[in-house]
Amino acid sequence: MKQFLSSSDVLYVNSLLKKAKRIQQDSYGNNMIGKNKTMVLLFFNPSLRTRLSTQKAAQNLGMHVITMNVSQAWGIEFEDGAVMNLDKAEHVKEAAAVISQYADLIGLRTFAGLQDREADYEEKILNQFAKYATVPIVNLESATVHPLQSFADVFTIETYKKKKRPKVVLTWAPHPRALPQAVANSFVEWMKKTDYELVITQPKGYELSTQFTTGCSITYDQQEAFHDADFIYAKNWSSYSDYGKILPTDVNWMITAEKMALTNDACFMHCLPVRRNVVVEDMVLDSPNSIVIQQAANREVIAQTVLSEILKNL
Amino acid sequence: MKQFLSSSDVLYVNSLLKKAKRIQQDSYGNNMIGKNKTMVLLFFNPSLRTRLSTQKAAQNLGMHVITMNVSQAWGIEFEDGAVMNLDKAEHVKEAAAVISQYADLIGLRTFAGLQDREADYEEKILNQFAKYATVPIVNLESATVHPLQSFADVFTIETYKKKKRPKVVLTWAPHPRALPQAVANSFVEWMKKTDYELVITQPKGYELSTQFTTGCSITYDQQEAFHDADFIYAKNWSSYSDYGKILPTDVNWMITAEKMALTNDACFMHCLPVRRNVVVEDMVLDSPNSIVIQQAANREVIAQTVLSEILKNL
Amino acid sequence: MKQFLSSSDVLYVNSLLKKAKRIQQDSYGNNMIGKNKTMVLLFFNPSLRTRLSTQKAAQNLGMHVITMNVSQAWGIEFEDGAVMNLDKAEHVKEAAAVISQYADLIGLRTFAGLQDREADYEEKILNQFAKYATVPIVNLESATVHPLQSFADVFTIETYKKKKRPKVVLTWAPHPRALPQAVANSFVEWMKKTDYELVITQPKGYELSTQFTTGCSITYDQQEAFHDADFIYAKNWSSYSDYGKILPTDVNWMITAEKMALTNDACFMHCLPVRRNVVVEDMVLDSPNSIVIQQAANREVIAQTVLSEILKNL
Repeated sequence: MKQFLSSSDVLYVNSLLKKAKRIQQDSYGNNMIGKNKTMVLLFFNPSLRTRLSTQKAAQNLGMHVITMNVSQAWGIEFEDGAVMNLDKAEHVKEAAAVISQYADLIGLRTFAGLQDREADYEEKILNQFAKYATVPIVNLESATVHPLQSFADVFTIETYKKKKRPKVVLTWAPHPRALPQAVANSFVEWMKKTDYELVITQPKGYELSTQFTTGCSITYDQQEAFHDADFIYAKNWSSYSDYGKILPTDVNWMITAEKMALTNDACFMHCLPVRRNVVVEDMVLDSPNSIVIQQAANREVIAQTVLSEILKNL
Repeated sequence: MKQFLSSSDVLYVNSLLKKAKRIQQDSYGNNMIGKNKTMVLLFFNPSLRTRLSTQKAAQNLGMHVITMNVSQAWGIEFEDGAVMNLDKAEHVKEAAAVISQYADLIGLRTFAGLQDREADYEEKILNQFAKYATVPIVNLESATVHPLQSFADVFTIETYKKKKRPKVVLTWAPHPRALPQAVANSFVEWMKKTDYELVITQPKGYELSTQFTTGCSITYDQQEAFHDADFIYAKNWSSYSDYGKILPTDVNWMITAEKMALTNDACFMHCLPVRRNVVVEDMVLDSPNSIVIQQAANREVIAQTVLSEILKNL
Repeated sequence: MKQFLSSSDVLYVNSLLKKAKRIQQDSYGNNMIGKNKTMVLLFFNPSLRTRLSTQKAAQNLGMHVITMNVSQAWGIEFEDGAVMNLDKAEHVKEAAAVISQYADLIGLRTFAGLQDREADYEEKILNQFAKYATVPIVNLESATVHPLQSFADVFTIETYKKKKRPKVVLTWAPHPRALPQAVANSFVEWMKKTDYELVITQPKGYELSTQFTTGCSITYDQQEAFHDADFIYAKNWSSYSDYGKILPTDVNWMITAEKMALTNDACFMHCLPVRRNVVVEDMVLDSPNSIVIQQAANREVIAQTVLSEILKNL
């Protein structure tokens, strides 16, 4: 693996899942591969799980980690040819090239702005960084995808599935704030790399981009989707068609114990953080069917798997 | 030691003081005990001494340390059953459990809010974290106590005392802002674990909670308290009875050279940071009797002692 | 080397440049010298290159690094005898002495305030820290100088020069914000330690302090300065005479390809961050003559050289 920008950087999911299993069983078994290597983690947005799990994973491999909250320091210009006489102090051409001088790997988190759909879906920031960096970039969640999360989700389902081809439901759920579509897009993309049965359900107006969902089974009937499901993956996202907006159609989509009873004793998954009793009822999260904590724990395993694959090629 | 939430986690102070002495003499003598262990330090409030000394102590033992300023990232909900549709993005149930996946030890700093005495004195935040975390918690100052500070204070007195049973005076001192009672409460609690003579002195209205001071010698006459003292420990705190308030009774309580002349050539102590010429005169802090810097240095020794005791049991 | 506050801490530039060359070729060749040593980096101001390069350099030498953003935590009082009843929570006497307890080396970044020229040019903050710290201080840019930058600039010129005594031009360039004179002052100071030909050019009103420029060749004619230059070093600074101000005289000082054509195929240098098409045209920065990225890379080499010299004396 040369970099980890999106699912397309992973050719053989199954072979990596096997490596992840070995890493899960022996976190420190390969702690010399990162010796004298430094990973710089750049956060344009806040992070708990991604930061801790990636830093831990890198340290498990023997790397040094330097964390920078970019927005605190100065604004970065992404437009070519810009006359930089306003609030942006440095161009990505310099920023990415300079950080590459001090890092062997760069991790980058940059959320969707939710203002300009075209810019977000072009992955302008991620791609500009990758273009001007001279070391591999690891996507720590970008405008449209969150591949470390989704890869960990596949690994989690693989660990908990009770049948070869489980039915996996991605369901929209309510939330008071407008959130990016990245986790949902990415989940769909990675499910397509497996042979699981995927059903997507959301209210009208919350359809994801067909760039991700073409060929997927989609229904507006949440209860129908839940029937016989083996995994319920809940997530909020804002509208793609009315870009970045919250629509007044979302009552009654919270995940409840009553709805979970429609499933085949399904495991409940969420990428976290999750708003209790808004996205999902306490009773679901506190039930033994909830695997959200194990799902979070797997973030470290998958980050370590990805980093060790990249380190091999350095 | 299984955790370090309060003084009650320490059964044998004297044996730990002996270990601390050895650690002070050889900081790196046990630098493999923390190998492949990670400590996450979570700060709900700013920190200099506690952060530096704990991080240094953990690294002396061979651990990795990851520091997070929690408040910067997102609000945590501590109420069970809350409908989380406002400003809190994650419940402590998930936050504590998830961080436990990436950490072998969690350090937590969370000051008193000084609004709701009952909530502060229940140690709600600390206790909720400890309840939902699955790894040991180390208290880096909580609403009502600061045990790493107080344990270091005992170690400091032990180092500087010239008689077996020194007279130790905890004196209130003025300050422009309303501060928690944690350092004072905790100091009283730990003094009771020793056989020193303790006298507490404060203006009327600034009495500490009897939960801590029952059985203590207390006087409203600061000068009387200072007579023949071997150690003067100065600290400001806000009112416990008129909770979190600054009362208009605090003139003339600043520690001066004149007052120090009443003592038995006492050492001057303060947990720092200290406001010069408000809490204490320059002349006192700059005198050879001031041991505030050594006291701060001992924070590292004690943090290392506590962490190594917990690591032994991991 | 006992500390690194300014150029006067470096006696033999040439011998250090040779050491830097060896470090550049083998970054990890001396990675035990910092074992069990901790460097605390204190930032009163934001930092990208300085933070990353210094942290990387320290880690290359085997040191632990702890980074603190000081301004976020609390204000520090620098006045002797102050009655600290306002916004400053700790005096530099305590802050510097306490941090020295946990650190073997302290790095300090503190920009000019640009309000009070006398205070800035006295280097009050840096000097107060150095006075009360009990471990060596490394200047990560102070009010009037940035020696790690300038030393790296000398190393860069040394690497790229095509003749024994190149003509080096320091040219003022436009910028929308008022910036300190530190980089320019420092560059002049370090150029004087070499035998290069130095020419300084700036508009009227932007003359640097004669404390730095006495004996230097200075011209108000930028184009004249550029003739036959081997290195163009561009930098903005605010007025020293009308202290900290931006004067309305700065049109047409941007570095352009047309101006670069006047030179002897000169290398273009800038300390970064640089505002494209304000300080310098895209065409110059994107040309093969621009060595700004290599210049930034050399920050790590020079930081490591300086730190290893100080570590030798610990």
